[in-house]
Amino acid sequence: MSSELTSKVDKEARKRAAAVLRDKFLNLIEQLKKGEPLIMEIPMRTLSNAIYDEKRKLLLLGEKKLKRNFLDLNEARRFMQTALMASIIYDALVNDEYPTIRDLYYRGKHSLVLKSIDGKIISSENTWDEQKESDSVIVDIEVFTSLLREEMLILSKEKGKVVGNLRIRSGNDIIDLSKTGHGAYAIEPTPDLIDFIDVDAEFVLVVEKDAVFQQLHRAGFWKQYKSILITSAGQPDRATRRFVRRLNEELKLPVYILTDADPYGWYIFSVFRIGSISLSYESERLATPDAKFLGVSMSDIFGNAKKKPYLSDIERKNYIIKAKEADIKRAEEIKNYEWFKTKAWQEEINTFLQKKAKLEIEAMASKGLKFLAFQYIPEKIANKDYIS
Amino acid sequence: MSSELTSKVDKEARKRAAAVLRDKFLNLIEQLKKGEPLIMEIPMRTLSNAIYDEKRKLLLLGEKKLKRNFLDLNEARRFMQTALMASIIYDALVNDEYPTIRDLYYRGKHSLVLKSIDGKIISSENTWDEQKESDSVIVDIEVFTSLLREEMLILSKEKGKVVGNLRIRSGNDIIDLSKTGHGAYAIEPTPDLIDFIDVDAEFVLVVEKDAVFQQLHRAGFWKQYKSILITSAGQPDRATRRFVRRLNEELKLPVYILTDADPYGWYIFSVFRIGSISLSYESERLATPDAKFLGVSMSDIFGNAKKKPYLSDIERKNYIIKAKEADIKRAEEIKNYEWFKTKAWQEEINTFLQKKAKLEIEAMASKGLKFLAFQYIPEKIANKDYIS
Repeated sequence: MSSELTSKVDKEARKRAAAVLRDKFLNLIEQLKKGEPLIMEIPMRTLSNAIYDEKRKLLLLGEKKLKRNFLDLNEARRFMQTALMASIIYDALVNDEYPTIRDLYYRGKHSLVLKSIDGKIISSENTWDEQKESDSVIVDIEVFTSLLREEMLILSKEKGKVVGNLRIRSGNDIIDLSKTGHGAYAIEPTPDLIDFIDVDAEFVLVVEKDAVFQQLHRAGFWKQYKSILITSAGQPDRATRRFVRRLNEELKLPVYILTDADPYGWYIFSVFRIGSISLSYESERLATPDAKFLGVSMSDIFGNAKKKPYLSDIERKNYIIKAKEADIKRAEEIKNYEWFKTKAWQEEINTFLQKKAKLEIEAMASKGLKFLAFQYIPEKIANKDYIS
Repeated sequence: MSSELTSKVDKEARKRAAAVLRDKFLNLIEQLKKGEPLIMEIPMRTLSNAIYDEKRKLLLLGEKKLKRNFLDLNEARRFMQTALMASIIYDALVNDEYPTIRDLYYRGKHSLVLKSIDGKIISSENTWDEQKESDSVIVDIEVFTSLLREEMLILSKEKGKVVGNLRIRSGNDIIDLSKTGHGAYAIEPTPDLIDFIDVDAEFVLVVEKDAVFQQLHRAGFWKQYKSILITSAGQPDRATRRFVRRLNEELKLPVYILTDADPYGWYIFSVFRIGSISLSYESERLATPDAKFLGVSMSDIFGNAKKKPYLSDIERKNYIIKAKEADIKRAEEIKNYEWFKTKAWQEEINTFLQKKAKLEIEAMASKGLKFLAFQYIPEKIANKDYIS
């Protein structure tokens, strides 16, 4: 692709990633030259090697490593897959390609055929059959090289949106996120390539639901309370998490998360704050250990010794949704997560288990958008009425 | 909310919608004053009243109307619901609120209680129990008033994104959609309030998949081929459909739709082009009868008498996904839709039913993004190799 079509930032990112990938795999060639067995040492990604770092408040990969030996029959297939995927990613980097994990799956999908001298097929083996396999190999390469997939210019679908008093540089453009009209800025899949130019905001509010984001945006919430308003549109993707983390870490902005009052909402908060167990290798870069759960909390619904509830008896009757079996089960699981074992979270979860009641943010919006935007949210922030 | 926080455009839209709503329902008061029975006449939204207009190539509501009589026991509940919802929407309009259909459900949800003189509850009736009920009432109000929900400032989540050589005015801002860096512009939920300022593009390309949109955007597709690039991120929502329709109708840009080669992809095309059966009342404003199905088509995969396939034998072997029972069933349904009864579509569907094969766009991207962006798409447009 001609140079004007793609950004300079991308070209530099390609060079960096290609160099790391090359170095890491050249080591294997060195082993081969020395007549040593071909072995890759890759950090283990099992639950037993996912460690909750109390101090940094992050879910991290431990020290355990697995050895992948080309000459071990049990490991040869995975070794082949790893080398194949690395070469495909490397080719994509040097050829100005932007693959997705789905097309990396297709790029590598074929049969390795062993034929006899007279051309008969002796054996045939597929490189991989399902995307689950190739995805897992990509993660191996990420932990092996310490390069996130985004740094290797692997793109993905991206749901996160942002508005607020922030100017950024992305690609060749400078974008003013306070000038998006009624629409919003859709975050790029490679948020590490964004430069923050200047900011005039006091906090970040992340809203689980896109429709509530639209309401708060339209009502001028982020203008009234100098803030950056973000939606993850459900379960947050990697880019949205990384973008939020960077706002917190680099711009020193407090981050508040607003979800439904239910175990699914708590889990969304947890993914922002801690990371997910299955992907603890990425937590170090993607999680925001400083994020706060602003609500909707059980005490907003029912009140407590120190606080009046935000809902009247009749509103509770009309708005509360009865928890399902699956919700109860999920809450009991979450209750046992290391990072939910604080007094405040145990209280929150116990109240839920006792009342068996959940509530959507929309119920708060139905009390009036003015109530949600100009009373409930700012009041809770001012009173530090959140859970860490 | 203070006047600086919300846009002037919204204020004007509110006035327009409130006036229409008021007029429409004041008629009922007139009936009442005259001592006539209270009756709302609402266009029927049944399949039998959804008519495919061959000439305009749109799925439209027919002439049939239903009468909702307040004094008929079978209709009193729905009459009450309609009047209740209209009053909630009207209140929201005059109070600068931006409800969603979810919070309209909550706003109206309560019990109507009939008590005896001594305070005993004689009967209690919920206004509605599920959102399905309140949503259906909203549609009634749309067809009764001829106001789309967006014109009544009812917001919703919104997945559509756009980039390209187009400047628009949205809210109080002017936005240059060619200056979004690696990110994109997330379309607002009320696209009728957008002004097109100027455009330098020759066509619109709508991509079903967000990840493929990201790839084409990043590769500079819309710069190379002066175009406006849009993703619906799956099944298109109302705002994305309306935005695409306006680009086609007002800016006279041809619209090409790129989806997976499977019945789900065809249905996405069909929703853009014709509308959906269940919501034929909105087709007149939301559908783009002029939209073309660019691909991926069966002839791209297998070729035909006039055309070589884009895939080699070995690529077909590696990329094709075997159709499932549900795909076959869906294809047989679609084959019988009035608007798929053209020669080209019947050929397309028959090939699918015969080969039982589907293909994702990502398989094309895996042949190289340059192939997808700078050969496959432009070549097909230049050769008019699409299905209408």
